Amino acid sequence: MLENITGAKLKKMTLKELIALCEEAREVITQTVLKNGGHLSSNLGMVELTVALHYVFDFPEDKLVFDVGHQCYTHKLLTGRYDKFDTIRQKNGISGFPKREESPYDCYDTGHAGTSVSAALGIAKARDIKGENFNVIAVIGDGSFNNGLIYEAFNSLRLLNTNFLLILNDNGMSIAPTVGSMHEYLEILSEDIAHKSKVDRHAKIFERFGFGYDGVYDGNDLEVMINKLTEVKERIKTESVILHIITKKGKGYAFCEEDPEATHGISKGNPSAVSTEYSQVLGNTLTRLAEKNDKIVAVTAAMTSSLGLSEFFEKYPNRSVDVGICEEHATILCASMAAEGLKPYYAVYSTFLQRSFDEIVLDICEQNLPVTLCVDRAGISGADGETHQGVFDLSFLSLIPNLTIAVPKDLNEFEKMLEFSEGFNAPLAIRYPREGKKLFGSCQKIEKGKWETLVEGDGKYAILACGERVLTQAFIAAEELKNDGIEVTVINARFVKPLDTEMLDGLKEKFILTVEDNMLTGGFGSLVNGYFNGKDKVIKNFAYADEFIPQGSVAELMSERGVNGKDIADYIKSNENR
Amino acid sequence: MLENITGAKLKKMTLKELIALCEEAREVITQTVLKNGGHLSSNLGMVELTVALHYVFDFPEDKLVFDVGHQCYTHKLLTGRYDKFDTIRQKNGISGFPKREESPYDCYDTGHAGTSVSAALGIAKARDIKGENFNVIAVIGDGSFNNGLIYEAFNSLRLLNTNFLLILNDNGMSIAPTVGSMHEYLEILSEDIAHKSKVDRHAKIFERFGFGYDGVYDGNDLEVMINKLTEVKERIKTESVILHIITKKGKGYAFCEEDPEATHGISKGNPSAVSTEYSQVLGNTLTRLAEKNDKIVAVTAAMTSSLGLSEFFEKYPNRSVDVGICEEHATILCASMAAEGLKPYYAVYSTFLQRSFDEIVLDICEQNLPVTLCVDRAGISGADGETHQGVFDLSFLSLIPNLTIAVPKDLNEFEKMLEFSEGFNAPLAIRYPREGKKLFGSCQKIEKGKWETLVEGDGKYAILACGERVLTQAFIAAEELKNDGIEVTVINARFVKPLDTEMLDGLKEKFILTVEDNMLTGGFGSLVNGYFNGKDKVIKNFAYADEFIPQGSVAELMSERGVNGKDIADYIKSNENR
Repeated sequence: MLENITGAKLKKMTLKELIALCEEAREVITQTVLKNGGHLSSNLGMVELTVALHYVFDFPEDKLVFDVGHQCYTHKLLTGRYDKFDTIRQKNGISGFPKREESPYDCYDTGHAGTSVSAALGIAKARDIKGENFNVIAVIGDGSFNNGLIYEAFNSLRLLNTNFLLILNDNGMSIAPTVGSMHEYLEILSEDIAHKSKVDRHAKIFERFGFGYDGVYDGNDLEVMINKLTEVKERIKTESVILHIITKKGKGYAFCEEDPEATHGISKGNPSAVSTEYSQVLGNTLTRLAEKNDKIVAVTAAMTSSLGLSEFFEKYPNRSVDVGICEEHATILCASMAAEGLKPYYAVYSTFLQRSFDEIVLDICEQNLPVTLCVDRAGISGADGETHQGVFDLSFLSLIPNLTIAVPKDLNEFEKMLEFSEGFNAPLAIRYPREGKKLFGSCQKIEKGKWETLVEGDGKYAILACGERVLTQAFIAAEELKNDGIEVTVINARFVKPLDTEMLDGLKEKFILTVEDNMLTGGFGSLVNGYFNGKDKVIKNFAYADEFIPQGSVAELMSERGVNGKDIADYIKSNENR
Repeated sequence: MLENITGAKLKKMTLKELIALCEEAREVITQTVLKNGGHLSSNLGMVELTVALHYVFDFPEDKLVFDVGHQCYTHKLLTGRYDKFDTIRQKNGISGFPKREESPYDCYDTGHAGTSVSAALGIAKARDIKGENFNVIAVIGDGSFNNGLIYEAFNSLRLLNTNFLLILNDNGMSIAPTVGSMHEYLEILSEDIAHKSKVDRHAKIFERFGFGYDGVYDGNDLEVMINKLTEVKERIKTESVILHIITKKGKGYAFCEEDPEATHGISKGNPSAVSTEYSQVLGNTLTRLAEKNDKIVAVTAAMTSSLGLSEFFEKYPNRSVDVGICEEHATILCASMAAEGLKPYYAVYSTFLQRSFDEIVLDICEQNLPVTLCVDRAGISGADGETHQGVFDLSFLSLIPNLTIAVPKDLNEFEKMLEFSEGFNAPLAIRYPREGKKLFGSCQKIEKGKWETLVEGDGKYAILACGERVLTQAFIAAEELKNDGIEVTVINARFVKPLDTEMLDGLKEKFILTVEDNMLTGGFGSLVNGYFNGKDKVIKNFAYADEFIPQGSVAELMSERGVNGKDIADYIKSNENR
């Protein structure tokens, strides 16, 4: 029935047909995600809510904003994207997140947590200013509900004097189980809803901010949801309402229901892959170091296991904190614990580190405190697309004074860098991708700002590469050039900041090429250019151009942006022939 | 009595002596701030609370964290800095904010809003981990209390399982009067406290998060404060407590009590200077444009008047929003209103824009929405020091795809740029300093990415300068060089992004010098270097080195960092003589 479904057709369906539609959607989502990778359990929990929303409201005239957006798959199936659904998260396919460019039914792009309430308020306020008349609905999970943005948006509800519907989809999980006082509070409210006791008895917090409140205990019961939404649709004509619904993450797929954390995000063909190579090294090494060093603490924001830190958290519960999706708070916690003499490690995905920019500048670096940022999933991250690429961190981190930035050449060197970090008494960021290898048996002793020459070439070219991915490309180039009789030097630029100025000075006679898995603007190459400020020096930077990078595989995205061995080799060859 | 005051001496004083001490502190603060500039009314309101804290607690063993930190003057007077107090906010003098480097009594540096609760929690947690035993106190104003960080920290209170005291200093103001639902809620609580009704009747929100709650209506009554703090000191042995005290901003200085907004921050010798030249142009121009264009909306985060937007807000109440100190929320509101076809302007100080980094990347730029960021107080801001310099924005903004960055050469061009922005259908940032002049009678038509040649020199040098301050220095250099017979070209690089590549291509034969009021790393010069990536081109960048910039006057700070006409001229001369 999903094929050629429209809002008009859906509204004419019987309840029985709608339930069958839900089952079909669940089946399509499961099969597609197991094939393409993507968000599984979060989407399975959302099927009935989404169908009910489309039954009761009129999209795209009414506006639907998804928080984070990873739970929009049913919405996509219902809005003309069934045909292309098997391309989801593939290069040139449809996105796994809402995209305005993709469909008029996607009214606001999301990707990071907590933005939906602000966005829904802005859309509702714009509607009022324009004198128009439509409904605005935001759907948020209880994990995102921990984020500070929610509070900022709540605080301005009366100020903006506008009405919208906020659906709080409560499954007790973000990626990991939701933590914190708000979660405990939501559990109290759930109990009320479950026992059909007067639901507004405990809901005073929301009322203080100006919301009406209502709840649904079985958010996966389509009939109940349709009735409730119909009722609430009337109510939001005169006030904003929080509709708190309890759903089951992974609903309908036993594997997900049993382990919704492992199945939140699925990699292609491997539903249980949670931690990855670099994150495993992080977890193992930190756990080992913490045994002898009782100053070490680990802080995460709602993704402990995918960062490789489950064992650390189990072993040292008193020295580990998962604050939920509160990246800014996590950063300050680390800074203040460091101010008191502890040795905090904040592990986070590159894309989510963006949220802490101001706190990295002021709390960590202005105070010059020994916090180590473990920046995972750095560089192109792949199938999640524009909102999740980790290609900005070298740029937004390198502009911050007092911060040292390290990039390991492989898993072994990452371990050595973590050992180095233990005695390093200043702010440090170590950035690394998801997947990793043990490329090299050993590495030279890690010293701040000291690079390592991996291949000493006789020729005039020196390739400076930071990180495993681009070093691999540098080696491919070197190998190819060797066949042409061109011997290039390959340097492991394992500190992006500070630069190894001694080594750079030694390269005065060489033509320097920089390679990085990051934007050209403000990144590693840009720092090398800046070092030769005022000097007569030709440098060629291989990095990503100034545009958002869509979804695709890491290899294809890097390659088509010229950050690959072949392009480097071709450049050098053409330069030779000039 | 302030001279040679110590904690031990203070603790032995009678109430009468302590009251006299308060008066002395008030007098010293008033006289000093009127001379040096600084935060006046906020500090006057804090005198009794600070003396009471020092009477009841034992610093520096106990730890005191100030939110934002601008209200720490009495604390500085009481902790060995009376002698140096007249150097506050002066070059090489003591800071107007807490600084760990300055004193062991300053345990955590602050500068931006909302960080204190997280920092106090981190310090308390570190204490517990280390098995130590001291008290942790955070003092926060009701203005900062709007910030989302507060909520993130509250959410983790039970999780962290630690105790501290949070003093909510409620004077109903941030810089401007506090707004929003939390403020309304605090007013209800104040009523309870005033009428000595059961204060916990309405305080359920704080209890939900795990706090005990108590209140003091006259936070400027020293005796009451001492008694209450003594009582609460016992209580925080077993639980975290919010002590909500009502104080009078500007207490004891009639001028401040009458107009606490104008006297929140005082410029040297001019207590009523609120809006400045560039902000006036912003206000006047936007107000004029909005008359004919009903799509224009203005958004601010708690500093409408200092941004020059008071008139706009009065004239268009339905199209203006001050969300309180919620910079991230403000940014998303703009993005979402733009998604609905409005034309939002978000006016903000450069330093506070840092908080919105992730939202500028994803909400505004990834969606390519026509929001205009009016980035005020950009470049060196002066006396507030490290935490408030606006020297990072060209770097953290220029790395974001889809964003156009404009920098006006003077007040007239700023007006033209705002007119240009009205028809510009993509993300735009315009950055400008506090003070401005009408240097030039006119400017060439503003076109995206098109620069303007102001002086056509015959010689081999071209100075590219962005913004009034550095263009002024470029002219000083050009003038001086003329005397030596060297004619330089001076170009108004009014778009930092995109660069005027046509003009750059035309400068192939020239030696290019870039000048900017921003960090070298990732800034304007860095973009120009990047443009000549792979080409044989010598470029000299004048910009700030990689370090935090302390307090001082704008002129002296720029000058000693080599961003001035003389250094530019000297460089060119020495290059000539090579």
